[in-house]
Amino acid sequence: MKPSHLVIGLMSGTSLDGVDAALVEITGSGESTRIQVKHFVSVPFANDVQAELLRVASQTPVPAQVISHLNFLLATLYTEAIAQLCQEAGIELNQVDLIGSHGQTIFHQSEPAAFCGRMLASTLQIGEGSLLAGNTGVTTISDFRPRDMAAGGKGAPLIPYVDYLLFRDDRLGRVLLNVGGIANITSLPASAEMEQVKAFDTGPGNMVIDALVRRFTNEEKTYDANGSIAAGGQVIAPLLEKLLAHPFFSADPPKTAGREQFGEAFVRQMLEHSKTARFEDLVCTATELTARSVAAAVTRFVLPATRVQQLIVSGGGARNAFLMQRLQVAVTGIKVVTSDDLGVPTAAKEAIGFAILANETLHLHAGNVPGATGARYPAVLGKVVYGDNYKRLRGIE
Amino acid sequence: MKPSHLVIGLMSGTSLDGVDAALVEITGSGESTRIQVKHFVSVPFANDVQAELLRVASQTPVPAQVISHLNFLLATLYTEAIAQLCQEAGIELNQVDLIGSHGQTIFHQSEPAAFCGRMLASTLQIGEGSLLAGNTGVTTISDFRPRDMAAGGKGAPLIPYVDYLLFRDDRLGRVLLNVGGIANITSLPASAEMEQVKAFDTGPGNMVIDALVRRFTNEEKTYDANGSIAAGGQVIAPLLEKLLAHPFFSADPPKTAGREQFGEAFVRQMLEHSKTARFEDLVCTATELTARSVAAAVTRFVLPATRVQQLIVSGGGARNAFLMQRLQVAVTGIKVVTSDDLGVPTAAKEAIGFAILANETLHLHAGNVPGATGARYPAVLGKVVYGDNYKRLRGIE
Repeated sequence: MKPSHLVIGLMSGTSLDGVDAALVEITGSGESTRIQVKHFVSVPFANDVQAELLRVASQTPVPAQVISHLNFLLATLYTEAIAQLCQEAGIELNQVDLIGSHGQTIFHQSEPAAFCGRMLASTLQIGEGSLLAGNTGVTTISDFRPRDMAAGGKGAPLIPYVDYLLFRDDRLGRVLLNVGGIANITSLPASAEMEQVKAFDTGPGNMVIDALVRRFTNEEKTYDANGSIAAGGQVIAPLLEKLLAHPFFSADPPKTAGREQFGEAFVRQMLEHSKTARFEDLVCTATELTARSVAAAVTRFVLPATRVQQLIVSGGGARNAFLMQRLQVAVTGIKVVTSDDLGVPTAAKEAIGFAILANETLHLHAGNVPGATGARYPAVLGKVVYGDNYKRLRGIE
Repeated sequence: MKPSHLVIGLMSGTSLDGVDAALVEITGSGESTRIQVKHFVSVPFANDVQAELLRVASQTPVPAQVISHLNFLLATLYTEAIAQLCQEAGIELNQVDLIGSHGQTIFHQSEPAAFCGRMLASTLQIGEGSLLAGNTGVTTISDFRPRDMAAGGKGAPLIPYVDYLLFRDDRLGRVLLNVGGIANITSLPASAEMEQVKAFDTGPGNMVIDALVRRFTNEEKTYDANGSIAAGGQVIAPLLEKLLAHPFFSADPPKTAGREQFGEAFVRQMLEHSKTARFEDLVCTATELTARSVAAAVTRFVLPATRVQQLIVSGGGARNAFLMQRLQVAVTGIKVVTSDDLGVPTAAKEAIGFAILANETLHLHAGNVPGATGARYPAVLGKVVYGDNYKRLRGIE
């Protein structure tokens, strides 16, 4: 196989706001992985697509055909994002070796529940890998979560493997924090072995903040740019206390969160508790909830086992100055930085991650961290669909 | 790679009655493929599973979580069928090299329709390949249709490639007919090249018959065993004429049919047309509809281009003696036989087919026939998920 590959990573997260696409040159694999980020684009979904995704992800009943069509539609939109990425980067699609795509999660339940007389956990990602491979001609690896669940894991988080490859340090204990719709952390003790890596979701990232902003601005704004709304408000202490009492926060990791815990019902509960509260106070409280739940997770579940010098933030939340400030206050004694400071663009980190995970599968390496997902064993993740380039890729012509 | 592989093929069809599993030793690949069928089991779904599948496939609105759970549930049931297959065959799972699984189709629309402002065709199969690979430890290739659709095809039928490998003859022109819920034919002219293979759905197979039997026996019977109900009835000629006027039958191939055309709505239309008709006359008419629509398809779309000596029947319909008799009457001049007569068990043919298609993908061969699906090019089908045996399979240890 070639020593280096040009790989596109795609991520569309629980915030349902669009797709991130990163073009990465990856040299080697496993612990010898080296990356060079060539370009990154973030392409928002049109309003009607976002509304349809939100409807489905909120578990509104729909005919199977809606999910079938959305699966193909997302792959079409991903294809367009890839075209834009390549054009802006000045490369042709046929130079790309591989695509890694997380897909859009429309349901994720990592704890078994009763269904047709059996106990079942399950997860469902859409964004058809076969259509991506067909549209682009590039071999595509997609839908990484189910293979981890089949290994007894919770199917998430998957980025910890990437964190381990990119951010482990000989001397510094580090915690990686990604603030998307949901927030998750990866703990990397100084000179960590894979077996020492722990990771889990800490709770809401931007999900609750965004939902409040959308609601109170009648969808005119979709997020709290730079935290300026929250900065003008005050924390509603009794509400914050009540929210922090959610059993998710005290549950032992590994654990995963989603719209199921922190979606519409959670926001409704906030509004009912504080019926006359000011908009900016609610947003401030939601922002504090994110900061405090992250800090509590670090204190409860990381610090007892290892020393931590740096908290490295990525995802949309890294651009929220008020949140960053509250985080630094909440995690006293740990330096809060962004992944930009370490050379990995914050917004692109998860998309880069799925490029790296695809490269691992291409090299037949496992991509899950059992200490992060709870899997019984490391498994080669994802589903490989061959594009026209498969012979070149597999070195048989 | 090893010269021969032990492969399990899985098929659960539009009749929603269970899963067929075939254990096949496959030597070589492509035109040199030789098979030995080791064992076959057909495992019915429990009533509650079947009801849930029917609900979803009938496009009753459901939350995404139902589809997510069904996707994992089916893989669990497939795993149990595989365990039974291996036990009866006296082999261990770790002797199996590969699994090929079609999955359960819960939506299939091969003609583009408007969705979120775009024209989209799409297809959705469930029966999670990652869970099969995890549960069994065997590398699994599943979900073959979408890659053909990504190549511009209708995603079905896919068995024609297998028909070509197993049944082409130097001297005889052959038509393969599979009668499942839907009936489809593959035309193989004498000494055919792949480019000469044509295949398409002819319309209902057992779907309409089964629906009538279920309805009139209050679900006590689910099919017309050996055609004995139909044999006691008479064709309602005006109704038959009306049904044969359905535009699907005269549409040019390639074409695919499903529950969308010949499901509940179609049966309701029959009952409304003949409100006082006797049960056995309706079943007889539905059986004649299958026979006559197959014969019409052969006459209209096959015979103008090639001579045909044999019609080789497989699928559940091959066990319906009355249907076989009506078929022989309808296709005068062509000898009607079953695939059993040529060494391939009728009930197992489609499951065997997906074992062979998986073997083709393992060898990086395309598995679709453009003349059957309408695809612009032959594509390597399916999604590869690695089981614990991946190193042995890929020959890297």
